[in-house]
Amino acid sequence: MGSEPTSPNSASLRRFLNPRSIAVIGASDRPGSLGLRTMRNLEGFSGRLYPVSRRLSRIGRHECHGAMADLPEVPDCAILAVPAAAVEDELRACAERGVGGCVVFASGYAELEAPEGAARQARLRAIAAKKGMRLLGPNTTGFASFASGAHAGFAEFPGGLLDGQAGIGLVSQSGALGLALAQAATHGTGLSHVLTCGNSADIDVADLVEFLCDEPDARAIAVTFEGVSSPERLIAAVSKANRRAKPVVICRIGTTSSGAAAVRWHTGTDPNHDYPWDRALDDMGAVIVSRPETLIETTVFLAKTEGFSCPALPRVAILSSSGGSGILAADCATLMGLPLADPGPRTRALLAKELPGFASARNPCDATAQATSDPPMLTRCAEILLSDRAVDALVIPWGKAWDSGQFAALSALASVAGKPICLVWMSQWLEGPGALQVEAEPRLSLFRSMESCMAALGSWPKARRSLGS
Amino acid sequence: MGSEPTSPNSASLRRFLNPRSIAVIGASDRPGSLGLRTMRNLEGFSGRLYPVSRRLSRIGRHECHGAMADLPEVPDCAILAVPAAAVEDELRACAERGVGGCVVFASGYAELEAPEGAARQARLRAIAAKKGMRLLGPNTTGFASFASGAHAGFAEFPGGLLDGQAGIGLVSQSGALGLALAQAATHGTGLSHVLTCGNSADIDVADLVEFLCDEPDARAIAVTFEGVSSPERLIAAVSKANRRAKPVVICRIGTTSSGAAAVRWHTGTDPNHDYPWDRALDDMGAVIVSRPETLIETTVFLAKTEGFSCPALPRVAILSSSGGSGILAADCATLMGLPLADPGPRTRALLAKELPGFASARNPCDATAQATSDPPMLTRCAEILLSDRAVDALVIPWGKAWDSGQFAALSALASVAGKPICLVWMSQWLEGPGALQVEAEPRLSLFRSMESCMAALGSWPKARRSLGS
Repeated sequence: MGSEPTSPNSASLRRFLNPRSIAVIGASDRPGSLGLRTMRNLEGFSGRLYPVSRRLSRIGRHECHGAMADLPEVPDCAILAVPAAAVEDELRACAERGVGGCVVFASGYAELEAPEGAARQARLRAIAAKKGMRLLGPNTTGFASFASGAHAGFAEFPGGLLDGQAGIGLVSQSGALGLALAQAATHGTGLSHVLTCGNSADIDVADLVEFLCDEPDARAIAVTFEGVSSPERLIAAVSKANRRAKPVVICRIGTTSSGAAAVRWHTGTDPNHDYPWDRALDDMGAVIVSRPETLIETTVFLAKTEGFSCPALPRVAILSSSGGSGILAADCATLMGLPLADPGPRTRALLAKELPGFASARNPCDATAQATSDPPMLTRCAEILLSDRAVDALVIPWGKAWDSGQFAALSALASVAGKPICLVWMSQWLEGPGALQVEAEPRLSLFRSMESCMAALGSWPKARRSLGS
Repeated sequence: MGSEPTSPNSASLRRFLNPRSIAVIGASDRPGSLGLRTMRNLEGFSGRLYPVSRRLSRIGRHECHGAMADLPEVPDCAILAVPAAAVEDELRACAERGVGGCVVFASGYAELEAPEGAARQARLRAIAAKKGMRLLGPNTTGFASFASGAHAGFAEFPGGLLDGQAGIGLVSQSGALGLALAQAATHGTGLSHVLTCGNSADIDVADLVEFLCDEPDARAIAVTFEGVSSPERLIAAVSKANRRAKPVVICRIGTTSSGAAAVRWHTGTDPNHDYPWDRALDDMGAVIVSRPETLIETTVFLAKTEGFSCPALPRVAILSSSGGSGILAADCATLMGLPLADPGPRTRALLAKELPGFASARNPCDATAQATSDPPMLTRCAEILLSDRAVDALVIPWGKAWDSGQFAALSALASVAGKPICLVWMSQWLEGPGALQVEAEPRLSLFRSMESCMAALGSWPKARRSLGS
């Protein structure tokens, strides 16, 4: 761990994706243009920014340069916000100058039915490869490394690494899907990176996973993809993440024949439909989710439980203020093969002292609606349950959408006990004020589905057991 | 249909649950008290409200009465916001006076381990039954019929029937779970009723489903429950809903042995664990969902597609602005056994005219990111696809969380074509401004999970074919 030598692949990716200088070729002040949208996204960039425009002398506070050749330094990253017809010339100019890597937004390459598309893409690849320059795209929305504010993309999206949070790195082949998922940042999910690669002429999801292995801000890695040139390279990247103790959660799309057919017309990549994906990823300790809406929550859970000791089969205690939700949690745990913890007599006696007479000091422990009028009581019950050696993880179905004033205390309890506390948001006020506060807590995991919560707890041993092995 | 005679059960439920007059026994001005919270919830009640208090002469603009016997009329509904020790006397006073029905909040009845609890509950039941008075509870949070503002409960919750919306009626045995689900109203889901019954000493979920059969504001019925005294009565109520052309969607909890055990300590009702629930409900055309977070969306979908002609197996067209989401949709449809529609050559030619050159005029039809900068183009593609006789339903994965300005047009298209349009919210900004606007459209269905969307489309034929049969 950590002693692994850096591969040339990693080194060149690091220069490109952690750039100290960025050129925007085709920078613009025209509303709606990719050039303007990209410039806006780079407003917070901490490095040196060079807009390149034949037409403009300034964009905002930035002086424009007429061409790549005129820049005062060789940029680590160049963004080609130009029409497809201009891409090859600009790419060549970047390669000649020694640029670290280029982002190509333009479409009309291998995703086309006509063979010219694939030929055009092969030319881009050759131009870059000749000079050892990296290439992201074509047909990509770009990348964002939030630590340096390097948001090298044209899409509007809210996000960023939030202070004190478990940041996760998101890798998505599809730009739009990646940006849709990245909008979790609006309710407080901490993202360190959003990396999309589109047609993957050079850099693909395997490269991006490998890159994140050495990025300290990405404490766990979420991946969604449809096709790679070599499944083995992706498996190797997941294995490297494993050695770096970084959990990887994967939502693969294009898993059916109709989905795989659609991949052809989306990114023109190979879904490797016959490859035994599930088994190979599973062997490497990757956690596989089938629903993209659970990808982020599951990855954040693994980031927030970093360092907790994970048994082979976690025994779950359930603590609710709603008997119905407690029943649902018991059902779900059972269906997922997770044992319900059997709290000892001392725990039950301590719980009975806290709970109203008509409440249940069993597992599920139903603190009843009383817990909503007396939130500290629920926290005391959580502490009692977590102190029991028969309990490995605590699941709290949460019915109200507002703040309880107890989230920080619950997070601290999880931290001290070294055991996960998962809040399952039962309220259909999905982004109520309380949800945002739960997300902000470093050791409190949030799920909006009981099923996803229990599935994540079920996959926790696999994700952790394999790490570093 | 409609000619079915009203049962005595229905008539008494209607008086109680659509009350013209409500008494609140134990009305209070003490902050946090059930009596005050209930009075606040009834601020919008359109009928006559009678607070009953021995201590106070007024609460707000309402004059208090000292006892049930002092009221100027016999109320249709009385709410007992009093401690368990006072319940029997107050219940008896209500029964003597001829009150239509009572809500009993108090806990400490059949859900207790000690046999006294069950005996106490049997006494309540007997007091009410003797005079033909209905009883909701004990151990319930009450009910809300929004058309009249009759919110006869103590829980704070946002909600209400929204103008012009497909209102659904929600029946939940668990009060807290029902209120958690009802918070969908915060993002614009139209709820006509929220009915919870707790220990179900008299009125149970079967009665509440039967009541909603004749409530015009409830266009479809969502149910979550854990135990009923007679499964056959619930099956009969679903069958009646069927004859009234009202779809019923059910999320049953306590389905596993550990969940069923927890039911005993929650409401003390019988989960009838050996009853063949799934087959019996399925036979009656009820749609069964396993995840409560999909219950409301699925029910709203069935309400919003009322009157659309439903084939035996809907052929789905997919239209996306994100190729990745289109692939996911194709995968999901295939996994759910839904055929992808095969649009005719004319449709493909018309689509090709609208789409940019690098987009895919297939199914899934990928309008690319162009659709996000030109939303009317997406709407024109939707119209082309819906006009094809090979298309029975349209699924649009939606990646951005803000308004497109096209939601009303899409809803109108669905209405004219008589075919469902389902927007699947891919954005993890779960309650972004656009989501609220989609919910407000009468013919546009919203799902936050592709899987739930395809499952709902898959269950649509069953829910509709059986109706009225």
